[in-house]
Amino acid sequence: MARILVIHGPNLHLLGTREPEHYGRTTLEEINSRLETLASDLGVELEIHQKNGEGEIVTLLSDKTGSVDAVLINPAAYTHTSVAIRDALKASGLPAVEVHLSNIHEREEFRKHSYTSAVCKGQISGFGPESYLLGLRAAVSLVSS
Amino acid sequence: MARILVIHGPNLHLLGTREPEHYGRTTLEEINSRLETLASDLGVELEIHQKNGEGEIVTLLSDKTGSVDAVLINPAAYTHTSVAIRDALKASGLPAVEVHLSNIHEREEFRKHSYTSAVCKGQISGFGPESYLLGLRAAVSLVSS
Amino acid sequence: MARILVIHGPNLHLLGTREPEHYGRTTLEEINSRLETLASDLGVELEIHQKNGEGEIVTLLSDKTGSVDAVLINPAAYTHTSVAIRDALKASGLPAVEVHLSNIHEREEFRKHSYTSAVCKGQISGFGPESYLLGLRAAVSLVSS
Amino acid sequence: MARILVIHGPNLHLLGTREPEHYGRTTLEEINSRLETLASDLGVELEIHQKNGEGEIVTLLSDKTGSVDAVLINPAAYTHTSVAIRDALKASGLPAVEVHLSNIHEREEFRKHSYTSAVCKGQISGFGPESYLLGLRAAVSLVSS
Amino acid sequence: MARILVIHGPNLHLLGTREPEHYGRTTLEEINSRLETLASDLGVELEIHQKNGEGEIVTLLSDKTGSVDAVLINPAAYTHTSVAIRDALKASGLPAVEVHLSNIHEREEFRKHSYTSAVCKGQISGFGPESYLLGLRAAVSLVSS
Amino acid sequence: MARILVIHGPNLHLLGTREPEHYGRTTLEEINSRLETLASDLGVELEIHQKNGEGEIVTLLSDKTGSVDAVLINPAAYTHTSVAIRDALKASGLPAVEVHLSNIHEREEFRKHSYTSAVCKGQISGFGPESYLLGLRAAVSLVSS
Amino acid sequence: MARILVIHGPNLHLLGTREPEHYGRTTLEEINSRLETLASDLGVELEIHQKNGEGEIVTLLSDKTGSVDAVLINPAAYTHTSVAIRDALKASGLPAVEVHLSNIHEREEFRKHSYTSAVCKGQISGFGPESYLLGLRAAVSLVSS
Amino acid sequence: MARILVIHGPNLHLLGTREPEHYGRTTLEEINSRLETLASDLGVELEIHQKNGEGEIVTLLSDKTGSVDAVLINPAAYTHTSVAIRDALKASGLPAVEVHLSNIHEREEFRKHSYTSAVCKGQISGFGPESYLLGLRAAVSLVSS
Amino acid sequence: MARILVIHGPNLHLLGTREPEHYGRTTLEEINSRLETLASDLGVELEIHQKNGEGEIVTLLSDKTGSVDAVLINPAAYTHTSVAIRDALKASGLPAVEVHLSNIHEREEFRKHSYTSAVCKGQISGFGPESYLLGLRAAVSLVSS
Amino acid sequence: MARILVIHGPNLHLLGTREPEHYGRTTLEEINSRLETLASDLGVELEIHQKNGEGEIVTLLSDKTGSVDAVLINPAAYTHTSVAIRDALKASGLPAVEVHLSNIHEREEFRKHSYTSAVCKGQISGFGPESYLLGLRAAVSLVSS
Amino acid sequence: MARILVIHGPNLHLLGTREPEHYGRTTLEEINSRLETLASDLGVELEIHQKNGEGEIVTLLSDKTGSVDAVLINPAAYTHTSVAIRDALKASGLPAVEVHLSNIHEREEFRKHSYTSAVCKGQISGFGPESYLLGLRAAVSLVSS
Amino acid sequence: MARILVIHGPNLHLLGTREPEHYGRTTLEEINSRLETLASDLGVELEIHQKNGEGEIVTLLSDKTGSVDAVLINPAAYTHTSVAIRDALKASGLPAVEVHLSNIHEREEFRKHSYTSAVCKGQISGFGPESYLLGLRAAVSLVSS
Repeated sequence: MARILVIHGPNLHLLGTREPEHYGRTTLEEINSRLETLASDLGVELEIHQKNGEGEIVTLLSDKTGSVDAVLINPAAYTHTSVAIRDALKASGLPAVEVHLSNIHEREEFRKHSYTSAVCKGQISGFGPESYLLGLRAAVSLVSS
Repeated sequence: MARILVIHGPNLHLLGTREPEHYGRTTLEEINSRLETLASDLGVELEIHQKNGEGEIVTLLSDKTGSVDAVLINPAAYTHTSVAIRDALKASGLPAVEVHLSNIHEREEFRKHSYTSAVCKGQISGFGPESYLLGLRAAVSLVSS
Repeated sequence: MARILVIHGPNLHLLGTREPEHYGRTTLEEINSRLETLASDLGVELEIHQKNGEGEIVTLLSDKTGSVDAVLINPAAYTHTSVAIRDALKASGLPAVEVHLSNIHEREEFRKHSYTSAVCKGQISGFGPESYLLGLRAAVSLVSS
Repeated sequence: MARILVIHGPNLHLLGTREPEHYGRTTLEEINSRLETLASDLGVELEIHQKNGEGEIVTLLSDKTGSVDAVLINPAAYTHTSVAIRDALKASGLPAVEVHLSNIHEREEFRKHSYTSAVCKGQISGFGPESYLLGLRAAVSLVSS
Repeated sequence: MARILVIHGPNLHLLGTREPEHYGRTTLEEINSRLETLASDLGVELEIHQKNGEGEIVTLLSDKTGSVDAVLINPAAYTHTSVAIRDALKASGLPAVEVHLSNIHEREEFRKHSYTSAVCKGQISGFGPESYLLGLRAAVSLVSS
Repeated sequence: MARILVIHGPNLHLLGTREPEHYGRTTLEEINSRLETLASDLGVELEIHQKNGEGEIVTLLSDKTGSVDAVLINPAAYTHTSVAIRDALKASGLPAVEVHLSNIHEREEFRKHSYTSAVCKGQISGFGPESYLLGLRAAVSLVSS
Repeated sequence: MARILVIHGPNLHLLGTREPEHYGRTTLEEINSRLETLASDLGVELEIHQKNGEGEIVTLLSDKTGSVDAVLINPAAYTHTSVAIRDALKASGLPAVEVHLSNIHEREEFRKHSYTSAVCKGQISGFGPESYLLGLRAAVSLVSS
Repeated sequence: MARILVIHGPNLHLLGTREPEHYGRTTLEEINSRLETLASDLGVELEIHQKNGEGEIVTLLSDKTGSVDAVLINPAAYTHTSVAIRDALKASGLPAVEVHLSNIHEREEFRKHSYTSAVCKGQISGFGPESYLLGLRAAVSLVSS
Repeated sequence: MARILVIHGPNLHLLGTREPEHYGRTTLEEINSRLETLASDLGVELEIHQKNGEGEIVTLLSDKTGSVDAVLINPAAYTHTSVAIRDALKASGLPAVEVHLSNIHEREEFRKHSYTSAVCKGQISGFGPESYLLGLRAAVSLVSS
Repeated sequence: MARILVIHGPNLHLLGTREPEHYGRTTLEEINSRLETLASDLGVELEIHQKNGEGEIVTLLSDKTGSVDAVLINPAAYTHTSVAIRDALKASGLPAVEVHLSNIHEREEFRKHSYTSAVCKGQISGFGPESYLLGLRAAVSLVSS
Repeated sequence: MARILVIHGPNLHLLGTREPEHYGRTTLEEINSRLETLASDLGVELEIHQKNGEGEIVTLLSDKTGSVDAVLINPAAYTHTSVAIRDALKASGLPAVEVHLSNIHEREEFRKHSYTSAVCKGQISGFGPESYLLGLRAAVSLVSS
Repeated sequence: MARILVIHGPNLHLLGTREPEHYGRTTLEEINSRLETLASDLGVELEIHQKNGEGEIVTLLSDKTGSVDAVLINPAAYTHTSVAIRDALKASGLPAVEVHLSNIHEREEFRKHSYTSAVCKGQISGFGPESYLLGLRAAVSLVSS
């Protein structure tokens, strides 16, 4: 049974409780719950983590590399600033799917630059919590293809 | 029953026959066929067009605006050069999903600039033909939400 | 009697029906009608076209060059992306007036760059439908000067 | 009866006497005279000033704000360098029309950058003295709309 | 008893009367009055001027250099465009404190560039009229240190 | 009684002991002591932390959001590189005051770019330890206004 | 017998009749006639088209791919703006020669940027109609090597 | 007898009294006296002004145009920011020599940009007060050639 | 006996096990072992750490400053993104040698920008594990000079 | 009989012996021999030089100007860095043809910038040794036209 | 008796014979003769060289450093491209005066960038042969001050 | 026995005699002597040259390619300006080590750009004469690996 590592980047533990007009009212727990349900439907197992530290995500990727088949990651702010996570994703050799809740092309100019996107297989952005569910389907298709 | 307008941009009629090492061996007909099957599963109707001309896509978007509920578009090369399609998507007032077969962050620098992305709800890129299927799911979720 | 070629660029056929909060409620037909009335007052004849395709505008400019005395053009999106229309305007040798409904200095950064402006005699922008009427007066003054 | 403040920026007192091959032979007095005639036709009153100093224009805008209904301004060189006049125009709350004698898109690169344009309603450039007359019509239409 | 020169740059005489939603309803007179009160508490004397002209501020700085101990300046628009005031501040040899009512990092891109900041001891921005009071405290601390 | 969260960013624990010619001889303990004294005068309570890790500051902001009324932060190096702290400050919904010991406009070019400034209410920089005291006054004024 | 597809881009049908001081007095018909003569000498067949529309050139390239051995193209204005033609040239898999009548390094800055050049085998520019004849020789050498 | 207009820009009245380590100990009066002596030797008359205001220099240039034969100008800070003085120099039609006391290539990056240099005949910079004397010789050679 | 602090930045614990075609098959343990052997030959002691977190490296540098004589650091990804480590290296006052396994001039454009290099004494890059050994020799020479 | 100066720039003496996978296996001697044969066919004389030094090419151009009718030059690396050769080509007043073996649009970004191209009549690049033969034909056509 | 090294850079041996409309009809010999006459008047000796090679100028500067008191140099094209000559001028420790015949601010954009200017004492440009004479006066004043 | 070509670029013959505060007091002869001693220890032979001319270094690299096994080069100023030396290093096919005496990241902005670094195996900079000794060790390790 395929295992997929789900990584929520910095500040995502606040989902649904802060700036709901911007990020919606769905909490991270609800997203995780919907992910688990879909994972069960698709016949895969998930391992889910939320981390605020860049180094913690680097370490997590290295620790889990041997025991998972793909990565579903929302690097949040680190998308735009972290070469270290880029290097860690590349070093892992795992197929990765990058997801974003909001459409980053509608936001500040600096959010259009990405370090992580080029080392992920693909990106899904702009669909709110649905981005995660589509991302899980994408990850599963990568594992099974 | 919701109707979704599917637009394939320039050169996409060549899919599967040219540069297969780059774009894979799946033809546009096969993608359309898989889209139709999924549409049927999800209970929506599709209207599918492939156009090489920028002005043709502008006209198509304007002609169909009243009779569809969402747009699934792969603007291909026009992603990076067409303000006219950007304006047409915005003017249509329809929720739009932008899809790309390849990961545009792995390609030439100029493909990182997009005119159309900011006026679509979200983007899905990098998963080959699967990008379209995920995009259809996203479009359906936008219509039903 | 002087003849003036009026060209409405891409998406302008939607005027008054889409995004009225942004472009106002006046339709293209109403603008054309007001242009015809003013043309009659000023003693000139108009030939009016709306085109969504870049190549169509290039062809139109070349076809009409011999039979008109000036051009009144709202290149819309093509202002910012079309070298071909720039070349066609230059090649026509006709005095041209560029008009825009909205103030392009208030909009997205990319709308500040223009290919067509340097080959037109002058520009009028920001006054809504009034831009066209002022533009017609400008075109007439160019023809008669 | 509506009153319109006309401001001629730096060096414009030299019109018609210096570089006639570039700016034509019409003097500022002739332009003002034609403006007065048109104003009379359109049923508005004008208050006309020429100023070489940036601070003088700032002060003028502030002094006249309560007694005029619109501004017709040719900021000349200050178009490209003055944030202070931009702020003064914005602070006045008056609808403003920016005019230029020459087509600034045909001139030096630095003349394509404008501080004042975004805070005016619209611009008219390239038609020589006619730019002012068209600008006055535009200003009157703003006041009466 | 230490003397501090307070300079209000262009358009600041309009405070409280124009664009109150942006700059608040406190007038410059009220700010000056609060500054005088605080100066009295802190045991310093103030000399306060408002100038719209760049050259006037240059001259003011030069005229007062011998008779004051520090400068509290809100260069307003000239922050972003005046090398002359920068040079005048530097030439004065006086410790200077730069204040801004609004947070310049929240405004237009061009307001992030500053000519004057590097020659002032420090900056205080974003706190409305409170910026001036904090600035006076800062100036006093510079004089007494 | 209002509570204010004081955050000292990376390397600030070294204040007074390293590069005194650049940062002065006042230690962080002395600054904290002066802050406590002033807080007591102003009738507010402080909660003070020094953190070297970007993720730690993100977590700290999220942990304390419910129990404080404002933030006084010297993001130090993270001012220029951390989108994550910017997002955390914004998500907290708390009024924040950014302080810097040195005048960042006098230093390296890269220190002129800031991610955090736009999401803080205002900034105070260049006054050494006095920057913190002025910042505390500013924070208190934000809470009481 | 090798077949070569000759594509003349937008506005080239005007050659010899518009702006002769810039583009010379040779008409497109004369160029085509000289190309046919040289083709006959070199033992190749030509298929010649002139198109003003970007999409038309894309379609033409795709329609003819199976029946020609090389492409001789003057993309004119689309050199600088068309990613779609770039993609079509690449997708065709045919060796292509890009020609320009004028020396693009002597013209406007924006004409120095090219989308199509990197996917053609080589370029020839600056020799007027002779550019086409040299280009045909180059195309023939590519086919026979 | 040829007459030369000498213009000293903003802050130059401070020469010799402020920042002597940077600008030397020679006062403006001494420079003017040395200029008068040299003028007498060279058989020309001088008219000397120092102005802090940009608009004042614009007006001065226009007022004196008819009565002088050449301009010797140190635009100081306005070198880098004034399009208005550039336009005034150009409009005067007089040959102008630009001088600078210090070597502007050794100073801040922004001092390398000049608006005025392209409309002066030539520049002399870096030789302290000697720059003025060399500039006067250059101006005289322009008048007599 | 001199002591040298060796810091391996993020992802370097993966050396030899991930992307060997890119980084070679030598593990970090082997590098450390070769470093220890050389240190023994050169008569110095080493203290070796590998850290994935930016803040951890900042803390490490501050903790060890008093007990080591030089730093040998491979900041890896943080070379390009960390102002905090730059500040920490500078604050330590220790001579530092920066090493990189690969030639950063052959890699992605963003790897050419460095925050840390200007505060280290020198750099050694491109020689694989040998970079560390050369770096240790350089560090020793700095300590003994 | 027309004479054409052929200049091979730096490193071209290595053709055919170094990096054959990049530059082919044809030696410079073979290219020269093919050029001589074609020159004989076209009825022109050649004078051929290979130089590694920028100054040597400048001197060569000046020495030969009086005795040749056109220049065929492959400036190689100096295309991108030499203003001196640009000036020498311009000063010679001779029509010049620039050739490149490889398609410079497919190579490093810095090879897209050219100093020499604007002062040559035209360029031919990308056809390997054939570029020289086409270039000779172009040069002959320039001489005879 | 002071000795001054005069260096004429690449292509300057052509003065007066090539492009006279641009550089005038005065030959280098005539300039040298006028320089010698003035040198004699000013009581200094000259040593004059013209070199086309960058390395030759580097060597010349190093060879003559011990035997001259100042340098008068027109680096011509190398002004804009040579770091080596910049380094050689700096290493010589001699006061240097840079001269240009034409006003470099009126020419191509790339001529506004200079490597050599920052290491010379000052520059004189735009006065044709007179630039050299003024430059010699400047050099002499540097030697005697 | 391996042979290593040592190339000292422009101005390096002045080492130890000019700007000692910047480059130290060690002469090039002393560096060469220390290199010979180390070469002898490491069992390799050296061939050492100093050249001021770009073309001379290109020629030297081509002349020696067959008779040496590696290159140790300090391109000095040419690091930043010479595409020709870059091409020559690449064409030689030899492993090359680039060394710099000073830390180029601490110097002028333009010294951060390098043409040669990407074609060398690695770089060593900042350690004064020690850079050469470390570079020789690196070169030897490249030859023996």
